[in-house]
Amino acid sequence: MLVVMKAHATPEQVSAVCNKIEALGYRAHSIPGAERTAIGITGNKGEVEPGTLEEMPGVQEVIPVTKSYKLVSRDMKAENTVISFPGTAATFGGPGLAIVAGPCAIESREQAFAVAERVHRSGAQFFRGGAYKPRTSPYSFQGLGEEGLRIMSEVRDQFGMKIVTEAIDHESLDLVEKYADVIQIGARNMQNFSLLKRAGRSRKPVLLKRGMSATLEEFLMAAEYVMSEGNYKVILCERGVRTFADHTRNTLDLSLIPAVQRLSHLPILVDPSHGTGKRNKVTPLSRASVAVGADGLLIEVHCDPDKALSDGMQSLYPDQFDELMSQVRQIAAVVNRTVPAIGEHARVPANRGVSSSLRAAQP
Amino acid sequence: MLVVMKAHATPEQVSAVCNKIEALGYRAHSIPGAERTAIGITGNKGEVEPGTLEEMPGVQEVIPVTKSYKLVSRDMKAENTVISFPGTAATFGGPGLAIVAGPCAIESREQAFAVAERVHRSGAQFFRGGAYKPRTSPYSFQGLGEEGLRIMSEVRDQFGMKIVTEAIDHESLDLVEKYADVIQIGARNMQNFSLLKRAGRSRKPVLLKRGMSATLEEFLMAAEYVMSEGNYKVILCERGVRTFADHTRNTLDLSLIPAVQRLSHLPILVDPSHGTGKRNKVTPLSRASVAVGADGLLIEVHCDPDKALSDGMQSLYPDQFDELMSQVRQIAAVVNRTVPAIGEHARVPANRGVSSSLRAAQP
Amino acid sequence: MLVVMKAHATPEQVSAVCNKIEALGYRAHSIPGAERTAIGITGNKGEVEPGTLEEMPGVQEVIPVTKSYKLVSRDMKAENTVISFPGTAATFGGPGLAIVAGPCAIESREQAFAVAERVHRSGAQFFRGGAYKPRTSPYSFQGLGEEGLRIMSEVRDQFGMKIVTEAIDHESLDLVEKYADVIQIGARNMQNFSLLKRAGRSRKPVLLKRGMSATLEEFLMAAEYVMSEGNYKVILCERGVRTFADHTRNTLDLSLIPAVQRLSHLPILVDPSHGTGKRNKVTPLSRASVAVGADGLLIEVHCDPDKALSDGMQSLYPDQFDELMSQVRQIAAVVNRTVPAIGEHARVPANRGVSSSLRAAQP
Amino acid sequence: MLVVMKAHATPEQVSAVCNKIEALGYRAHSIPGAERTAIGITGNKGEVEPGTLEEMPGVQEVIPVTKSYKLVSRDMKAENTVISFPGTAATFGGPGLAIVAGPCAIESREQAFAVAERVHRSGAQFFRGGAYKPRTSPYSFQGLGEEGLRIMSEVRDQFGMKIVTEAIDHESLDLVEKYADVIQIGARNMQNFSLLKRAGRSRKPVLLKRGMSATLEEFLMAAEYVMSEGNYKVILCERGVRTFADHTRNTLDLSLIPAVQRLSHLPILVDPSHGTGKRNKVTPLSRASVAVGADGLLIEVHCDPDKALSDGMQSLYPDQFDELMSQVRQIAAVVNRTVPAIGEHARVPANRGVSSSLRAAQP
Repeated sequence: MLVVMKAHATPEQVSAVCNKIEALGYRAHSIPGAERTAIGITGNKGEVEPGTLEEMPGVQEVIPVTKSYKLVSRDMKAENTVISFPGTAATFGGPGLAIVAGPCAIESREQAFAVAERVHRSGAQFFRGGAYKPRTSPYSFQGLGEEGLRIMSEVRDQFGMKIVTEAIDHESLDLVEKYADVIQIGARNMQNFSLLKRAGRSRKPVLLKRGMSATLEEFLMAAEYVMSEGNYKVILCERGVRTFADHTRNTLDLSLIPAVQRLSHLPILVDPSHGTGKRNKVTPLSRASVAVGADGLLIEVHCDPDKALSDGMQSLYPDQFDELMSQVRQIAAVVNRTVPAIGEHARVPANRGVSSSLRAAQP
Repeated sequence: MLVVMKAHATPEQVSAVCNKIEALGYRAHSIPGAERTAIGITGNKGEVEPGTLEEMPGVQEVIPVTKSYKLVSRDMKAENTVISFPGTAATFGGPGLAIVAGPCAIESREQAFAVAERVHRSGAQFFRGGAYKPRTSPYSFQGLGEEGLRIMSEVRDQFGMKIVTEAIDHESLDLVEKYADVIQIGARNMQNFSLLKRAGRSRKPVLLKRGMSATLEEFLMAAEYVMSEGNYKVILCERGVRTFADHTRNTLDLSLIPAVQRLSHLPILVDPSHGTGKRNKVTPLSRASVAVGADGLLIEVHCDPDKALSDGMQSLYPDQFDELMSQVRQIAAVVNRTVPAIGEHARVPANRGVSSSLRAAQP
Repeated sequence: MLVVMKAHATPEQVSAVCNKIEALGYRAHSIPGAERTAIGITGNKGEVEPGTLEEMPGVQEVIPVTKSYKLVSRDMKAENTVISFPGTAATFGGPGLAIVAGPCAIESREQAFAVAERVHRSGAQFFRGGAYKPRTSPYSFQGLGEEGLRIMSEVRDQFGMKIVTEAIDHESLDLVEKYADVIQIGARNMQNFSLLKRAGRSRKPVLLKRGMSATLEEFLMAAEYVMSEGNYKVILCERGVRTFADHTRNTLDLSLIPAVQRLSHLPILVDPSHGTGKRNKVTPLSRASVAVGADGLLIEVHCDPDKALSDGMQSLYPDQFDELMSQVRQIAAVVNRTVPAIGEHARVPANRGVSSSLRAAQP
Repeated sequence: MLVVMKAHATPEQVSAVCNKIEALGYRAHSIPGAERTAIGITGNKGEVEPGTLEEMPGVQEVIPVTKSYKLVSRDMKAENTVISFPGTAATFGGPGLAIVAGPCAIESREQAFAVAERVHRSGAQFFRGGAYKPRTSPYSFQGLGEEGLRIMSEVRDQFGMKIVTEAIDHESLDLVEKYADVIQIGARNMQNFSLLKRAGRSRKPVLLKRGMSATLEEFLMAAEYVMSEGNYKVILCERGVRTFADHTRNTLDLSLIPAVQRLSHLPILVDPSHGTGKRNKVTPLSRASVAVGADGLLIEVHCDPDKALSDGMQSLYPDQFDELMSQVRQIAAVVNRTVPAIGEHARVPANRGVSSSLRAAQP
């Protein structure tokens, strides 16, 4: 916390602010400048609640400084977190990119298998599909629920892809935890702290999407909620933010990727399907996401987007996804990453358990 | 849904789009213009999923038209919804403004009673205070939980103010429903649809805050979630949105008030404490909120903001709240509303039950 | 400028940053904290260019602190600036509110006089109308140019209202300066620094509108450009900012009014016509603007909005403007301001020249 | 324009709206739907001014449809515009990417030549540098003016790079036109329509940067201003937009690239230096820009960023630029574009004049 005084603040006003800071139990550090004095505050364990400092005579502005994230920070763990899975070479955060693909919503066994067969053949190691859909309207299709989860677990059995699916409350999280391999927390729930804590008590990896208007700090603090409960296997995901721009459904903020990588050891993916909301922009933005350094992609694919019960407008046809994979594979090579080719992601010995390098890194 | 064709789209392309629309089960209405053709889509029950229309040859743009809110709409119910309470003259949506005041968080019995005594004396009919606090950081004070709810119910017994407090998940909602008079759903949970549905199954009124980047339509659709489960007693609340502007914590969007009132019959309040995040801006924006036509105010008040465990920076001192009430009372008179003066909100006969005029209005 | 070090920054890294700061000619102030060290920078005359500090080992973040506005600041001049005009009691920044009304564009002598007659009768002291229109499309009506200015000067002769009109480049500014009483700089030109400097060399007051995405600091710095050239008669005007919200054309940011009044001595108006872009929201937001403490209003009025060559959608009918004046007059009384009633703004003795209290306040 | 009626609008209300539309000189097309009626408007030459339609009884909403850009549109010209230069193989919009590099501001002959020598060696075909700097503060360095232009023309003579530099008003545009090869219009002047028209009367190519909160449509309309005056050689440039996000100075909106390419034939570049404002994010976002399909890059390079008089925080060191070029060269290959290697951009026969394929495409 830094208190900036007005240019003509008197020495008495500066003293009064310093005394107030000390009275609150902190230490005050006065820094006289050419034009005005600033006062640093230390001794705090987390963020200082500025209380009434800004109202004191002579005070111009109060600027927060200390960020209170700890477990997500590279200060805590310098090397990248890599999340791996038993029986597969797929990882989040490793040298290979994580490709998560599938329909927006699971609509039927036939639909799920048709998409799964195609995305698996194109190289996806993770299958995504919604069983619980957070829809803006209560009258829109809300997902098949547990039946959807069962279908996805059959997809895993059939194709060996790991399952990523969203939980929207405690009840669905219990079921997602039981059936799926990765628990997704959606953008609308990024600050549903009760759900984050519940996910933090799970042993399954958590894929956390950025909220529609979340700052980098809020996004990392949401991950901190999960980690503070003991689950260190968190995967972040940029999916576009709300802006005035109206040529895409959201504005995909790719600068977040290097910004996260500077501050945190957690892997970060990009979802260009939701990030743009337009089919014809998914492939170019996928190339850009890999080029900027993302650890993977979430892509919506549907065999018959016209008939999709949700998000048909942004779902790729399987052939388009195949072409996308071909393009990102080449981009990945330039940034020293790999994307699995057809058939490449075969099973690895089953005794390799789920592990988080953060956990491993601890004594 | 409206499909806008490119200027040079051929008649065959227009036909193909029309055929596609018909094949999807809708009706297509071609509107030839001087420069380009537009095609209207009707026959849909809710929003049309545009699927691949935008990708078809000759298509310039697809513009959604139909909004799917029903119960929140003035189309459904022309007169304003008024929510009243047994044993009090206080309402949401009536001619008297609803003044909801209290500390950000309940910290102790002493703190709560000290604030309650003062805001009651100044004319507040509703007491607010957080027992469950959604905090950005997991290391910040998270609220007293059920103990906080018990303290607030004592405040009600002592002062006759009705209690408004936030529920953050199903578990806390069960308790809030038991102890409080109005269930608040916070901005971060505005699209926590599972929680909205649960609130919709309650018989207590629901105060729903606008999400930080929610459009008017999304806000109304969130209210629709509550109403679609049978609870018609919804109170909306503007609390500021996320923008680039950095002189306040959020940007208070007062134009939302007349916009809501044009489309919906639901009452709408303003929370200038969160809306600005700065104590010195709460009173001017409270005056503006009443002047623009809001049905009431949510104001944070604390007897010792310096020691507040949360949001001290935006909490008013009781004397400031008293002054605020005096000012808004005069503004209210100009817009033909009233604000209770000291002692005015005495008990009314206890047999006047909770009622919603929407329910009453139905056959 | 404040440099925040990482939690595990070494003493050597802290020293290196301090040495770098000193090498750049500033003074470094190390502030060791419980978790991390911050380093304050002083000795700078304006903003420090942070150069490569953020790239140095151990550096977490660089936070700018010093604002470089001077002449606009209350640090420089504590009392409010009041801008008055010869031959009239109207002011910007005085106890009476400044009401500026008229059509978006001057379309003809008949149209201008018809509107002028009505707004004058309702109490407006200033007549606005565009002779040079900054239109998004080159094919839209661009204004009558000098002919429009001539018409407005006839309006002044006839009704005694002072003329406010926009200049869009040096050429039009020369003419606006010649014909009008107040030179308006529009939102799109708020950072057209060349035009700001030219306006600063004028002796006519300058009404400066906030840019569509200007921060408070940028807005004040734009005013500083005008003042730094010697023209201290600057009037600020909030007119809405760009956000994701789509229920109004812009989002009117009324919290800017108290924020400006805290930092600056300059008068500040609100333009709810552009700020909302919707006729039915102009009156409620006008009430709110006066209630929040604005020094006046800019209102678009047209006798036949359907036929308006621009902005017909947001222009009030004269009868609506009359009603608006009646409402804001009552709100003004609550905040100890006045709004002239019919016939009240008669001529005052002509020998009272234009004066700025800032100029007067200087030795 | 589309008028959406309320659900319960009466046939009389629908008729009244249709009659009003006809009275305004347009044609009305009523489209009855399951829930409500929509009315299409045709017969307009450009945008319809909706006037008072939204206020009529039974009207829910008025939705604008027709966009009025013409010359920028692919409707007008299907093939990409390629802008080439005499005496060089460099183009904007051709298969080779345009690399524009140099310091933010020209500070001295020595500084300019030092940077020019390095960026030329790394493969840049265009040299950028500001002679006229639009600075937020009037007290910041404002550029060397004509002296800066002279230095840049010497850089061209020495290295053969074409010169790109910003004009901020008519006066500086006269000089930029005389000395430089490409006239840059900065983000702050994107809607300085007077300056756009002046640039449209030049025969030199115009590089137009997107305004900080410009929609795609406004951006294209700004280009239309230039083209409507006869200059078809316009190059667009994305440079980040204003959002709530605070981890970068602006939010780079890469989805704009495919969106522009869908609607317009004009080339579009990306400026990741201003788009991020942080040195450590320039290279990753440059890779992403090329991957998404941009036609080139603007990069700030300075030999001693610590001493830079402006934007030192985002300027690359020459070695970093060299590395950037190496990386984007590989990305370019994946998207079938090329980036010149060292020495590759030697002179081509001088008789190949500036040409715009748009001009060539016309009869």
